[in-house]
Amino acid sequence: MLFHVRMDVHIPTDLDPDVRAEIVAREKGYSQDLQRSGKWPHIWRIVGEYSNFSIFDVTDNDELHEILSGLPLFPYMDIAVTPLATHPSDIAAG
Amino acid sequence: MLFHVRMDVHIPTDLDPDVRAEIVAREKGYSQDLQRSGKWPHIWRIVGEYSNFSIFDVTDNDELHEILSGLPLFPYMDIAVTPLATHPSDIAAG
Amino acid sequence: MLFHVRMDVHIPTDLDPDVRAEIVAREKGYSQDLQRSGKWPHIWRIVGEYSNFSIFDVTDNDELHEILSGLPLFPYMDIAVTPLATHPSDIAAG
Amino acid sequence: MLFHVRMDVHIPTDLDPDVRAEIVAREKGYSQDLQRSGKWPHIWRIVGEYSNFSIFDVTDNDELHEILSGLPLFPYMDIAVTPLATHPSDIAAG
Amino acid sequence: MLFHVRMDVHIPTDLDPDVRAEIVAREKGYSQDLQRSGKWPHIWRIVGEYSNFSIFDVTDNDELHEILSGLPLFPYMDIAVTPLATHPSDIAAG
Amino acid sequence: MLFHVRMDVHIPTDLDPDVRAEIVAREKGYSQDLQRSGKWPHIWRIVGEYSNFSIFDVTDNDELHEILSGLPLFPYMDIAVTPLATHPSDIAAG
Amino acid sequence: MLFHVRMDVHIPTDLDPDVRAEIVAREKGYSQDLQRSGKWPHIWRIVGEYSNFSIFDVTDNDELHEILSGLPLFPYMDIAVTPLATHPSDIAAG
Amino acid sequence: MLFHVRMDVHIPTDLDPDVRAEIVAREKGYSQDLQRSGKWPHIWRIVGEYSNFSIFDVTDNDELHEILSGLPLFPYMDIAVTPLATHPSDIAAG
Amino acid sequence: MLFHVRMDVHIPTDLDPDVRAEIVAREKGYSQDLQRSGKWPHIWRIVGEYSNFSIFDVTDNDELHEILSGLPLFPYMDIAVTPLATHPSDIAAG
Amino acid sequence: MLFHVRMDVHIPTDLDPDVRAEIVAREKGYSQDLQRSGKWPHIWRIVGEYSNFSIFDVTDNDELHEILSGLPLFPYMDIAVTPLATHPSDIAAG
Repeated sequence: MLFHVRMDVHIPTDLDPDVRAEIVAREKGYSQDLQRSGKWPHIWRIVGEYSNFSIFDVTDNDELHEILSGLPLFPYMDIAVTPLATHPSDIAAG
Repeated sequence: MLFHVRMDVHIPTDLDPDVRAEIVAREKGYSQDLQRSGKWPHIWRIVGEYSNFSIFDVTDNDELHEILSGLPLFPYMDIAVTPLATHPSDIAAG
Repeated sequence: MLFHVRMDVHIPTDLDPDVRAEIVAREKGYSQDLQRSGKWPHIWRIVGEYSNFSIFDVTDNDELHEILSGLPLFPYMDIAVTPLATHPSDIAAG
Repeated sequence: MLFHVRMDVHIPTDLDPDVRAEIVAREKGYSQDLQRSGKWPHIWRIVGEYSNFSIFDVTDNDELHEILSGLPLFPYMDIAVTPLATHPSDIAAG
Repeated sequence: MLFHVRMDVHIPTDLDPDVRAEIVAREKGYSQDLQRSGKWPHIWRIVGEYSNFSIFDVTDNDELHEILSGLPLFPYMDIAVTPLATHPSDIAAG
Repeated sequence: MLFHVRMDVHIPTDLDPDVRAEIVAREKGYSQDLQRSGKWPHIWRIVGEYSNFSIFDVTDNDELHEILSGLPLFPYMDIAVTPLATHPSDIAAG
Repeated sequence: MLFHVRMDVHIPTDLDPDVRAEIVAREKGYSQDLQRSGKWPHIWRIVGEYSNFSIFDVTDNDELHEILSGLPLFPYMDIAVTPLATHPSDIAAG
Repeated sequence: MLFHVRMDVHIPTDLDPDVRAEIVAREKGYSQDLQRSGKWPHIWRIVGEYSNFSIFDVTDNDELHEILSGLPLFPYMDIAVTPLATHPSDIAAG
Repeated sequence: MLFHVRMDVHIPTDLDPDVRAEIVAREKGYSQDLQRSGKWPHIWRIVGEYSNFSIFDVTDNDELHEILSGLPLFPYMDIAVTPLATHPSDIAAG
Repeated sequence: MLFHVRMDVHIPTDLDPDVRAEIVAREKGYSQDLQRSGKWPHIWRIVGEYSNFSIFDVTDNDELHEILSGLPLFPYMDIAVTPLATHPSDIAAG
């Protein structure tokens, strides 16, 4: 089941650079593990912003919340989730 | 080059049903031709709304505008375009 | 799987009263069938507005979109869907 | 009498972790006591956000404000209250 | 139990003047009956707008919705309801 | 002359509790003196928020600004003022 | 007593041109009479919009509402009123 | 003196196609005359929207309003004007 | 050439009171010098807010930006500038 | 390929003045190098704000994101990017 997610990252500019680097590194590993598992099939950077649009493919809402709230950057993010359905014009849907 | 597009359709409720059906049918054909060509790789319905999130893969901004402004439903749509870049965590980015 | 839905109804004030009454009657029947089936467990009127908050219990996103887009009042509604997860403080969550 | 409440929690990221844990624990106990009493019949997590939708069943507005302003997380929350009425299509309404 | 209500009236400029006059006259009578009964203790015009702020004193949410949805101008209004509680500094609160 | 005022209080969560208590106590006294004088005839708590709706009865705009900017909590408040006129349906106006 | 007023005019594009011209001519006369009387000391066009910022100098809120609601273009306008006080840095304030 | 202008065009979908074509043609001529005169040095289409960003180079505010309010599409447009100053980093600024 | 300016001041509540007093005093002098020169012909306090509406009369956009960005309170302000043109109903316009 | 970019700068008022001066100086050099290379053909100050409108001329979305995210002021900015296409009325397009 697919969900569209927008994440906007707001790390305080006075956060300790080492702390920041450690969190960002963990975030990257966390994201790549989920990409490899097939649960996070798309992630795109929004040009000019510290933000991304992502597509998640999960079993249900609880699994999605568990994934998102476990993001190392979760305390520094605004996240907006939109449930997706098959589009009637989608040639891949048939 | 990838772009994220949100389309919200607002067809007047008093539009002639035949006119409406004809426009919607042309829209579907137009979209599917572009999907087959690879220029419109993703289209998802937003649950509960007459709206979609789409990803376009085009050569440049002019081509994207030509495609979008040629949509049969263009006069009835609000469209928001967001340019996308490669995300540094994307495992497909190489 | 639970979803929170807000529906705001905007029927044009110049719609034929008989047409309006017929649509509203069909809407009521459609809603009550889904309530009886367990897929629409809660519906509350928002005080002072022609709007409701509802909870849906469905199998997946596609089923929810099928239900919502089939509402007789769908062409006259703004709908906002929010996916819900189990709250860690919920005593019913066990 | 039913009310719909949305709570969005914004705990400063530099709050002492022990202080934070203590407040969050008290919040959970406070919420569960009210759930057991029947005054807080529903609480759902909003997917991807540190937020919830809740339904309260109280005697009057004063009781609801007393409950909400007594939440241990109240100083860190944005709260929006919407009064609910019986929906004419509700099969449970008699 | 007190509620704060804002009403914004949007009558189409092409509505038949006689129809309009008849609705506005009924609205006035409806409002004044409720004022006399004590259920609508305050109504103020917002300067420069076809809008009012009102205070209602009702038994519960259902009664308030019944009153508001019965307003002759209801189909032409946007209404926003805010529940009120006793303020701890109110000298009238005892 | 009547004015509708909404006040939203945002005291930083890390303000010294004694300083906070002292300001809040002064605010209460300041408000109650104005209530007794007749210049602040109504104050209601907005349910679930650290906010109030108030009605002021003052001689002119300058007096209202002097009162509001003198509130002990003024530096911590967002304030919105709306001028009120007599409503043509008000039974008390005639 | 001074008030700041913003007026945004939205005349339907399909209004009969003669009706429109007649209303606009009456509006001009109405405005100029009030300017000559000293009650409407300033009116400025907002560049690029069918809108104005105005300053009114009136006795009280009721007089201002009577003036604004009597504008021939009132049914086609959005109006926002802001009460003004003497600024402590104003050299004209004495 | 430079101004940044955003124009959003909203032509009713039921406008007579010949009327529409005639207005759009006049708009094009009007714009190109001003471009040739140097007063409208830049015009760009916003991708996916019936909108443009433009730069105007005019003598003063009155001239800009005269130009904009004279646009054949003016009754169908929302226009937002932003005054521009020389940027201190601009290498063309001397 | 006239411009309408709204200034909203947001001084942090924990700024050193002496620093604050010094900045506010400089702001007052800066403003009054410009008022005396004729470049800042009007300044009004918005009732209930630490904000003002002002009218500036300057030679061009660059001069206005130089004045505004030189305000001692500039780092603590949100400023919105609107260019003004002569209104066709203005009796002072000749 | 052209893009319209709005940048709003929000440097904390308590940032060390030397750190601030160093970042601002680097920003200026960074910008001017890109202006000289032809990739940043226009930059305008928005009057009264610490903001600019810019036009970028880049090969693709990835290049634009690389440029923008490399701005020394990037951590202190809100940035909004809008892709531009050739306008059909542009006399330079033909």
